[in-house]
This record gives sequence, C-alpha cells and structure tokens, in this order.
Amino acid sequence: MSYNKLTPAILQQLSAIVGEQNVFVDLDNLKNYGHDETEQLVFLPEVVVKPRTAQEISLILKLANEQLIPVTPRGAGTGLAGGALPVSAGISLSMERFNQVLEIDKRNLQATVEPGVINEVFQNIVKEEGLFYPPDPASKGSCFLGGNIAHGSGGPKCVKYGTTKDYILNLEVVLPTGEIIMTGANTLKNSTGYNLTQLMVGSEGTLGVVTKIIVRLLPLPKYDLLMLVPFRDLDEACAAVSEVFRAGFIPSALELMERDALDWVSKYVESSVVKLEDGIQAHLLIEVDGNDLDTMMKEMEQIAELMSTYNVSEILFADSEAQKNELWKLRRKINEAVKMNAISKEQDTVVPRAELPKLVKGVKEVGLKYNFKTVCYGHAGDGNLHIRLIKGDLTDEQWEGEYIKKAIAEIFTICKNLGGTISGEHGIGLIQKEYMHIVFSDKAMDIQRAIKKAFDPNAILNPGKIV
Amino acid sequence: MSYNKLTPAILQQLSAIVGEQNVFVDLDNLKNYGHDETEQLVFLPEVVVKPRTAQEISLILKLANEQLIPVTPRGAGTGLAGGALPVSAGISLSMERFNQVLEIDKRNLQATVEPGVINEVFQNIVKEEGLFYPPDPASKGSCFLGGNIAHGSGGPKCVKYGTTKDYILNLEVVLPTGEIIMTGANTLKNSTGYNLTQLMVGSEGTLGVVTKIIVRLLPLPKYDLLMLVPFRDLDEACAAVSEVFRAGFIPSALELMERDALDWVSKYVESSVVKLEDGIQAHLLIEVDGNDLDTMMKEMEQIAELMSTYNVSEILFADSEAQKNELWKLRRKINEAVKMNAISKEQDTVVPRAELPKLVKGVKEVGLKYNFKTVCYGHAGDGNLHIRLIKGDLTDEQWEGEYIKKAIAEIFTICKNLGGTISGEHGIGLIQKEYMHIVFSDKAMDIQRAIKKAFDPNAILNPGKIV
Repeated sequence: MSYNKLTPAILQQLSAIVGEQNVFVDLDNLKNYGHDETEQLVFLPEVVVKPRTAQEISLILKLANEQLIPVTPRGAGTGLAGGALPVSAGISLSMERFNQVLEIDKRNLQATVEPGVINEVFQNIVKEEGLFYPPDPASKGSCFLGGNIAHGSGGPKCVKYGTTKDYILNLEVVLPTGEIIMTGANTLKNSTGYNLTQLMVGSEGTLGVVTKIIVRLLPLPKYDLLMLVPFRDLDEACAAVSEVFRAGFIPSALELMERDALDWVSKYVESSVVKLEDGIQAHLLIEVDGNDLDTMMKEMEQIAELMSTYNVSEILFADSEAQKNELWKLRRKINEAVKMNAISKEQDTVVPRAELPKLVKGVKEVGLKYNFKTVCYGHAGDGNLHIRLIKGDLTDEQWEGEYIKKAIAEIFTICKNLGGTISGEHGIGLIQKEYMHIVFSDKAMDIQRAIKKAFDPNAILNPGKIV
Repeated sequence: MSYNKLTPAILQQLSAIVGEQNVFVDLDNLKNYGHDETEQLVFLPEVVVKPRTAQEISLILKLANEQLIPVTPRGAGTGLAGGALPVSAGISLSMERFNQVLEIDKRNLQATVEPGVINEVFQNIVKEEGLFYPPDPASKGSCFLGGNIAHGSGGPKCVKYGTTKDYILNLEVVLPTGEIIMTGANTLKNSTGYNLTQLMVGSEGTLGVVTKIIVRLLPLPKYDLLMLVPFRDLDEACAAVSEVFRAGFIPSALELMERDALDWVSKYVESSVVKLEDGIQAHLLIEVDGNDLDTMMKEMEQIAELMSTYNVSEILFADSEAQKNELWKLRRKINEAVKMNAISKEQDTVVPRAELPKLVKGVKEVGLKYNFKTVCYGHAGDGNLHIRLIKGDLTDEQWEGEYIKKAIAEIFTICKNLGGTISGEHGIGLIQKEYMHIVFSDKAMDIQRAIKKAFDPNAILNPGKIV
C-alpha cells in the first residue's frame, strides 16, 4: 500500500475538525506517541490528533480515506506487541480524551464507558457500587479499556471469570470508512446477525475505532483468600496447575512464577512476606473468591492438601490485606523487574493447561540449543505463560536478527503442536505478525485479509498490523 | 443471485463424492429435509446429500461453486427461524453422519466432537466423566451441537454459565469455497488474529460448514436445588428477576412462565407437583447449583425471602430428583404444548434483564392493539423472553400478511428501544431477516454483507439467510 504524506492543508483540516489545541506536530509529542511498551521500537507519526467525539473521528477517517493517510489508533501505549506503533507514519489517533464513565446501570449490572478510561479507575468506580469488572491486566493501573478491547486483554482473574471479550456486550465503532455503527445490543445473549462485537474485540484497531463500550458487570464477590505455594521442581509446579481444575476447583487466580522472576522482582519491590529459600524452582499463587468464607476456607485447605502431594516447601497463607497486596504487587511487577535486570523479549504463549509441563520443557530446550536463558511466569490457570527470553551472552546480531527469530519460531511451533497458539492476551500487532503462518493456514490468513478489506478497502487504519 | 438447477451429471458427481447410498432424490426425503420446526414453511431441496468427512464437504462445495448450485447445511432440523430451509432449492447438506464424540480430554477439561452429535447425548457422556457442558436448549434431546453453534444456542443454564459461544474454543470449518481451516486454537485465551471462531458461532451456516468442534468443559457441580415461585402479578414476576442478581445471587437458572403457558403444558405433560391456583399470573423457576449443599440451602432461603417481599403464593421447593425433572419437563415442553393448543408464531426477544417489565407491558399493549393474545416464557434471568403470538380470532390474511408483521415489528422496536434485540438464541434465519433493519443501521448491514461476500463470493452457502 502506498500512502500520501501529510500536507499543511490536511493539517489545517485536522485542526478544523478537533481544534488546533488537539493537533500536535512537535518532536517531543511525535516521540511520545511513536513508541509503546514493546521493546525499543520507535516509529514517529507525522501528527498526533486527540479527538473527543465519534463524529470527529468519523471526519478524520473520511479525510484519511480521501487523502490516503494512515491512521493508527492509540490507547495508553502500554501494548506489548507494537499494536499502537504508527509504522507507516501518518496520524497517531490518541483516544485519551475519551475518558468518561458515562453510566453505571446498577439495575442491569452494566456500564457504558469510553475507551480512554483506565482499567483500574473503572474497576474501582464499579467496586464502590458493589460491582465487579474482572479483566485485570498487569498494566491495569495505566492501560485503557479501549486498548484492552483491542487486544482481548486478560489478567489473573480471567481464569475464573473470562477475558475482556466475555464482558463486552456492545460497541460504538467508527468504521475505517467513517460510518458510525453499533455492533450489537446491550444484552447478555444475542443471536442476531454476525457477531460484530467479538470481531472487533482483539482486532487491535485494524477494523474500526471503538468510541463507546457497553460492558457487563458482576456482583462483587465479598471475600478472597490467597496462598503462595513454593515448589522444589518447576515441572511439578506446572503439572499441579491442571490438577487443581481436575479436582473440581475453579480458583479466581492461579499464577506461576519461576524462581528467577521472583528473585528479580524481590530486588525491585520490597517484600517482607516472601522468604526465598534455596532449592525452590517456582511458586504458584492461588486465589479463591466467593461470598461464603467458611466454604472458601475449606476450599483453600483442600487445594493446599492437593499441593502437598507434590514436593513443596511451606505454603504461605496471606493473613491480611497488606500481605495479599504485597504478593500481588510482586506478581504484577515481574515484567518491569525483568526488563530492568536484563535485555529481554517477551512471548505470550498459550496452550491447553495440562500441556504446561511440555511447553516449559520445550522452551528450556530451545533456550539451551540457542544459548539463552528464559524466565516463565503468568496465568498458568488458563495455560497462558509469559516467557521472557534473556539476551545474556547473545551478540546484538543474534539478538536482533534471524537467529533469535528462529528460536522464537521454534517456541511457537511447540505451542501450536500442543494445541496452543502464539498470543493469549497481548495480541499480534507488529512484532508477532511474521509468526502467524505457524498457527494459521494460508487460507485462514487469506480470509482474515478479506475481512480486513471488507472493513477497510484503502487499508488506512492501523496498517502493517496482524494481517 | 441466480443459481443453476441440478443436472443428472452433477448428481452423478455428488454420488461419486459421498457414495450413491448417501444421495437422496425421492420425494419423501426431499419433504423431510424441506422443513424444520419453523411454523409451516416447506422448501424442497433438489437433492439431500449426507457426507461423512470434511474432505467430502470440501469437494461438494467446490462443485457447487463451479456449477452455481445452492447448498443449505442442516443439523437436526429443530431450528425455529428457518435457518436450515433450502429456500433456493439445490443441495440439502445433512450433517447427521458426523455423529462421533472423538475425544474427551479430562486433563484439559475439553472435548473434540462432531457437529451431528445430539446435545443431550454429549452432555450425558461428559457427565459420566464428572464434566459439564452447560448449553442446554429446550430441544436438547434432539438438536445437534452443530446447530447449536450455527444459532449461538442458549438454554436455562446459560444465565450462570453463558451460551454456546462461551464453550467453543476452536472449529474445523469447510469454507464455502471448499478450503478446510481451523479457526483458532484449543486454548481458553486467544489474542491471535481476528476471532474467526466467534464469527462462525451464530452465523447459521452462511460462512462455512463446521466439521469438528473443540469445546471447553467445566467440572460438574455436585448439587442443584430448584424452587417454583407463583406470582399473583406478572409485572412483579418480571421485576423480581433483576432483583435476584442485584442482591448478589447468580442462580444456575431463572425461568419465567406466564400462567397460560403452564395451563397449556399441564394438559400436555402430567404433573402432580404443580397446583395451579386461581389468581396466579406467572411463575419463576429458580435453580441454584454448586458443590456445597449448606451454602446452597442458605442461598435458596435468601432468594425465597427476597421473593416473599412480592405478592407470591406458596413457594414450592422440589424435594426429589423426580420433582425437579417434572418441573423442568413442564418448562421444556411449553413450546410444544402451545403449538398443540393454538396456531402461533414465536419471537425470541431479548433485553437487559431489568427491562423485562417494560418489555412484557409493551408486548401486551401491542397484542391489545392488534387483537391477539401472547404467552411469554423463557430465560428471564438473561432477559431472553420467548413470546408466542396466538392467532386466535385473526383472519388468515391478517396472520400471514403485513398486519401481523407490523405487530412483530412493533414488538422488536420495543426491544431495540430498551437496549435489546430481536433474537437471543434462535437466530435470524429466514423468518426474522426482514426485521434486521430495526436493530442494525444500513452500514452495519452492509458490513455483514461484505463479510458474507469475503467468505462466499458466489453466495452458494445457505443463501437467503441473515443478510
């Protein structure tokens, strides 16, 4: 696709649409909007535009279609796959001014919210009403709900409650050609036409720009209990995960942290709770929630008993909110801590959960073969393991080139062969695109390209991503 | 679209693909496959073909594309919207020989199953393994899992557990152009490309033919408890529904049955449990499930207490499996009973659940205006109400013509205005197609047509449905 460059005339038209105070062409802004949380990649847009209404976005996209200018929608820029990078320059369309919670409908356990609202801000607002919005990515303190929709984001709670897709009832979307549509209805069930809502979720801003979100909420569970189980053997920690579910439990979180992850994060986050003994290879962090504390205590005991059939050290039961918060902080900060400690690349592998031992074994073998270390952690309960490849002794050439890509392709092939795939919750964006052929046949890719074309005939919206 | 007629040469090619014992052109078969459970509609196919493999279907669809022959996939023929009716004649593609449960993967709580397996047969097979497949349409004793996918089917359990879409992880699909693809991965989370799996669910066999299904299963809850609450006032019964959820309960079923529904079904199904007192306008059937009987008993008491704040008669707590089965049988047989008692048309309305009182009030007003009765029943817990319009004193002309269509359009407009839509679980198929404009803008319809075209450029697969 060949695009046109922005001209002063087009800039003027953009200013006329959103007001000139919402159009930015200075280098500082272009740099800020030229990267996200994906490694060291930077692609400068030609202009940053901050609209406030769906109508403004409609006009911007119509203009971009006429003039063949690429438009890259952007949430909070916390993405890990480069989905918000303006790889073909053009317009960076920031959704930050869409920051209102429009309605909390307590009667229907629903809310209407704009895509620039921060996940945790929204969670806290509904919590005050006794309601619960489960999806909770590690970046919840800064990421936008719109970005969560773009990537189909998950988080620890999703093992019991499902991911973002399971909470999105209906969307207002500006199509790449500028028309504004509602994708569905504000209902829990819907068999009316093709599921446009779920086609938008996970499409990473390539099929339309979400401008309003109707989400489903749950009654807030009254209590939660948390335990940390230290395993002497990584393989056993992985194997124990599926046994929890086979025994009939559905924990509200089941996270795995490999030893190195916790070592690193412990330097970075102060912790008085966790004693890192020698000989511990991994920890499982297991949460149970509900409304009946007695039942939950019983369940925790039963799960702990099940864990004790493995080679584990002393299980820690969090006995205060402070301890729980500390344990969760350790888990959430792993990503940052590893980034601080080492040059690394994160892969967002996912397999059926009982295949975790095989996945981890395979990953370690690939690491040995290519001479790098890996740190594994994440949402083991739903088979979604984040794997950080550590550069270590690799040369820059190996790390940036075909050498490391071959290793990543081997890891993804292991996922595929185990019934899994290459992203559980981070998305494909820019950096995983080249691996899509591992999990999709040519025809399955063709049909995705045909869908993209049906929505965006001139390929102006978030070009260079996914397909 | 203009299609070609079948020729003896094409019939011969079909026989070569599936074997001549699986090709039927006799009038009895054409009649059997020319109708479903949708009112009195009949459209004869030119041939009924019963393939056994995805490869055979691939060859059939390639042939149909070359020769421009319409192909209408068919499950068990229990659909209520005419989705399986071969309206442009051509080939009726019966999936009845895809009847194998291929694998129960107890380690991963998953199963691989063919689309011609009967819902209840599958439920019972997994139940024997201590596992649970929740979607349970009223027709579960005869409908196919493939049909459930086509329509995004629901059922009573879906209020707690979600509908068919929430259990489908991955699909093998033959595209209209004959290629066989997998839509996703066998994982609980997936952010890898567009959600082709959820695009297939609810697409009513217009985008591809599902030939293999990977479903997610749950641990089977150990217990369930059931109560029947008789309300003196229909409006209060509707209003009570959302109060259950607002109070923090998530029952495993919450069904509404209007008085007439139960009157009719009581004639048809023998019941010793339910005493139909004078002055009762509606019943709520409320089920709670779980693994801890004490907690569940407490919950039942609390819900009963909440119900007692309304004008209710004596609440019946089912005290045996036999009683539970009887109550469920009454609920499930309503559809048949009403059909036996009166000429009627069923609408599958759905609204946010707290809007049920307004929906029912609106429906009754439309009935008064157009001089017909209505009977309401169904999955009130998720706002999904089946409304049977009873012909009564209407003339045939009124019943078959624009008169009744205007009334239905008014009912659907009420749904739309309440944030709802025109089908919760039955689908659009043939008979609701003309009402799609009520809930979708022109552009939202255009984009659905463009998706259809991306999959099926010659429009040979299930023509005349949805779009």
